[in-house]
Amino acid sequence: MLRVGYPANIEAALLSVMPSGIELVPLTDGLDHDVNVDVWIPDPFSSRAQRVWAHLRGVRLVLALLAGTEWIPGVVGPHVTICNARGAHNISTAEWTISAILTSLKYFPLYLDIQASGDWRRRSEAAAQYERIHGGAARFYPPALLEELTGKKVLMVGYGSIGKEIERMLAPFHVQMRRVTRTARTEPPVHPVAELDNLLPEAEIVILILPLTAESRGLIGTRQFSLMQQGALLVNAARGPVVDTDALVAALQAGKIRAALDVTDPEPLPREHPLWHCPNLLITPHIGGSSPQFTPRALKIAAEELQRYRNGEPLQNVVQAAAI
Amino acid sequence: MLRVGYPANIEAALLSVMPSGIELVPLTDGLDHDVNVDVWIPDPFSSRAQRVWAHLRGVRLVLALLAGTEWIPGVVGPHVTICNARGAHNISTAEWTISAILTSLKYFPLYLDIQASGDWRRRSEAAAQYERIHGGAARFYPPALLEELTGKKVLMVGYGSIGKEIERMLAPFHVQMRRVTRTARTEPPVHPVAELDNLLPEAEIVILILPLTAESRGLIGTRQFSLMQQGALLVNAARGPVVDTDALVAALQAGKIRAALDVTDPEPLPREHPLWHCPNLLITPHIGGSSPQFTPRALKIAAEELQRYRNGEPLQNVVQAAAI
Repeated sequence: MLRVGYPANIEAALLSVMPSGIELVPLTDGLDHDVNVDVWIPDPFSSRAQRVWAHLRGVRLVLALLAGTEWIPGVVGPHVTICNARGAHNISTAEWTISAILTSLKYFPLYLDIQASGDWRRRSEAAAQYERIHGGAARFYPPALLEELTGKKVLMVGYGSIGKEIERMLAPFHVQMRRVTRTARTEPPVHPVAELDNLLPEAEIVILILPLTAESRGLIGTRQFSLMQQGALLVNAARGPVVDTDALVAALQAGKIRAALDVTDPEPLPREHPLWHCPNLLITPHIGGSSPQFTPRALKIAAEELQRYRNGEPLQNVVQAAAI
Repeated sequence: MLRVGYPANIEAALLSVMPSGIELVPLTDGLDHDVNVDVWIPDPFSSRAQRVWAHLRGVRLVLALLAGTEWIPGVVGPHVTICNARGAHNISTAEWTISAILTSLKYFPLYLDIQASGDWRRRSEAAAQYERIHGGAARFYPPALLEELTGKKVLMVGYGSIGKEIERMLAPFHVQMRRVTRTARTEPPVHPVAELDNLLPEAEIVILILPLTAESRGLIGTRQFSLMQQGALLVNAARGPVVDTDALVAALQAGKIRAALDVTDPEPLPREHPLWHCPNLLITPHIGGSSPQFTPRALKIAAEELQRYRNGEPLQNVVQAAAI
């Protein structure tokens, strides 16, 4: 019978999704003797997982509960197959993206500041903020005290499973969507990244949801910020190094763009970093993928992979195939 | 030819939606002589509008650019027909509602506080906030640093045109929706308000988007808060007096519920009011209906009404028919 080790602090009821005909072996953080398991579900916290790994014997398959598995190959070596929990973060990350856009467009950071001051009359500051962000022109009457998402021109850079979730959640707002990936596609139309510079000037909102690769590192830099509209909103739900941090700080401090970031470069962002205090900026500390629904979702993905493994079927989410 | 007076500070280009065969008469705030107009589009700011009104002669029809026209009958008297701009605030108010829900569920007020402190490690406070809001139980591992909207149980109190917009924008999140209005309806099912107390215990999010009437005043009070779930989110996009403010302050201070309010009672909320500093609360100063798209939308509604008036067709948005 397949022996499957899992973090003991996962609630037992959640394991009911696991296939039958396996033996579940709870692994505590303080494990102090060697344990034989065929399959290992590591603790999502890598430091805990690595302490447990030191006592595991016989592991042939690692089923990670996270999409990001960067630390695992270096620890378990090349002779173990590693699968990730692709898709477990899709909904939470897409929800973060919609939330970050709306919070920025509704000027909620300003309104929270007004709330803290207890001064209702400060609402007029919102009209001044609108004019400042959009380059001084009061373009309508009465003045706007926030902005709308409905009808906005959105450029999505990256169009994987999370990007598609974001697009699905944006649908009721009838945004005008443009998509960019490494290579052009159709249905829906997706532009190649070579056209990025042509597409940036149109966009009111730029969403980054692409993987970090050698090509995407520093994709958004000084030149790209200069091409963006006055007051455009950059949303980074991808990885910090996709954006050149110095150029971002400069563009924010100049009042050229606004941003909402769940990721930064470096990360964690050090206490004295100038990015923390740039204007027109929301930073959350890489929490967009977090969710109370995360563990059940990730376990379901792991359970399906385990079932395929037990049945000798091809695995779906392999990030490293075991070297022979 | 019909003479139509309008606020001179509305951008001329926006008036292109007006029907042909009318004469547009710009009315400045400093108007110092009498002017004859058949139709009056008042300035959205009632104090400015009233100064202009003192100089108007011959008005038979008022086309308000706002949904709220409470001040107009008392000023123009009973012998003038008044139409409002029903629907002009629908999208902006619905967007505010979705934004307020997401900002609350994602703990963005806490994350903005963390951002201001420049201390990335404070993200662990979010897990403690989750446990505090939901009554102490850490129900999963790893701990959640925010909440999801997807799948939440939502109770919508009021189901007019804005309520339907809110429902449309909630659709991608697959919420479990219950609806309450004055009288029961079907397709979709709507419960009568008499069932409110039975529905409140189920709801994770309660959205108020009903008109203020003698019956709805104080609809949500001590008894209703006691029926709500620990940590439920109350969203008021309706009118302040629908909620009993003292009971709301008590429920918030006790940590029983959370709230997001665009309206309060009293309004403006005085500086020393305890509501400003209650925990788990977002207050915006009645800005949810504001929008850069407001004037074009409201003018389009007024233009359509004007066309009907000119053609002798029945008006659609009459809030006061002229007394004969």
